[in-house]
Amino acid sequence: MAGETTAELLDMTSPQGESCHTGHHLCMPEDSRKRAARRLAIARGHLESIRRSLEDPDVYCVDVLRQIKAVQGALDGAANVILRGHLESHVATAATRGDEKEIVDELMEVFKYI
Amino acid sequence: MAGETTAELLDMTSPQGESCHTGHHLCMPEDSRKRAARRLAIARGHLESIRRSLEDPDVYCVDVLRQIKAVQGALDGAANVILRGHLESHVATAATRGDEKEIVDELMEVFKYI
Amino acid sequence: MAGETTAELLDMTSPQGESCHTGHHLCMPEDSRKRAARRLAIARGHLESIRRSLEDPDVYCVDVLRQIKAVQGALDGAANVILRGHLESHVATAATRGDEKEIVDELMEVFKYI
Amino acid sequence: MAGETTAELLDMTSPQGESCHTGHHLCMPEDSRKRAARRLAIARGHLESIRRSLEDPDVYCVDVLRQIKAVQGALDGAANVILRGHLESHVATAATRGDEKEIVDELMEVFKYI
Repeated sequence: MAGETTAELLDMTSPQGESCHTGHHLCMPEDSRKRAARRLAIARGHLESIRRSLEDPDVYCVDVLRQIKAVQGALDGAANVILRGHLESHVATAATRGDEKEIVDELMEVFKYI
Repeated sequence: MAGETTAELLDMTSPQGESCHTGHHLCMPEDSRKRAARRLAIARGHLESIRRSLEDPDVYCVDVLRQIKAVQGALDGAANVILRGHLESHVATAATRGDEKEIVDELMEVFKYI
Repeated sequence: MAGETTAELLDMTSPQGESCHTGHHLCMPEDSRKRAARRLAIARGHLESIRRSLEDPDVYCVDVLRQIKAVQGALDGAANVILRGHLESHVATAATRGDEKEIVDELMEVFKYI
Repeated sequence: MAGETTAELLDMTSPQGESCHTGHHLCMPEDSRKRAARRLAIARGHLESIRRSLEDPDVYCVDVLRQIKAVQGALDGAANVILRGHLESHVATAATRGDEKEIVDELMEVFKYI
């Protein structure tokens, strides 16, 4: 069905051998998941402090632009942690499952928006 | 002094004629400031929901990558609101103040990180 | 008319005081123009060598990706030279001509594609 | 050895079963190689016409910025053709060769510069 991800279409155990709990069977490696979550928590805190800085009528545009760039860098870092886990656990193993085309199409679709 | 912004180095009234309250005199146009703050509040909420989604061991890498890209798009939107305000209010008026070089150097420094 | 640039719509002498030869009156500073041209010439040579490398059936994907990224970096460098010249010569002087809104709209339109 | 690519370090036949002619054995799929070469040839021609346009003292900054962005989009397109071929032919088959870690490290290194 349109909109389903490779993880939903395939019914297989996780490459890590973890038992995944629902119909999603290409689970994110636990280490990537926890490291990405920590980075997102930090980015969210930074974003909240930028938002609050905008309550000050004297805040300077260029300072805010710099802060937003720093958060963008932190989000890139979180995305790279997840991308690396995905490449190692799901893309590099695709030929052993036979879904090379689907998994690469799906990933190229995400890169389009980078 | 190193680290000071053009706004701090120059002692002048805001191009909008607003009375700015402290030593910062190149104030952000109020409309840009409020619109950017709203966008950052939405991005922060989205980021928090992504972080929570990572507590689920069944979350799929590519879904998270897509969500992070959406937040980055929202931050680009907020940065564009601020950049437009800065260009109109501070850069386009630089020749009337005589700080063209400083204000352009400062802006190019920010673009380097885009 | 749609598609015309600010330079075409405005009939004014160049901010550098150069006499511009045709209807385009916001001329690029000569120094920016020459430096950008040199960088583009180098990027074109690099691009040609990458294209030739693709005639070798043994060329490796990742080596080509790295080379393309290097050319993208060189093009960013050329674009930054031009952007800086534009900001200093045309944007920073907009308030003295009265076309702040047009020139900023035009520039933001370009940034959308960055 | 530092600087060697995965293709050089591994001595294996191409995933396409092509006989590769030298020590490089992770060859680019021929179709990707030809399509990327065509796109680079077009980008080079476009770049040359931009460089020539800079000989005209009346060329307008924003027009040149737009043209450079168009070339960058074309280079992104060529890079995506190569990346897709690499993911399908080399990354998705890594677990069958046992070089998952090396091939993913190498790819993430390239992404850092995107």
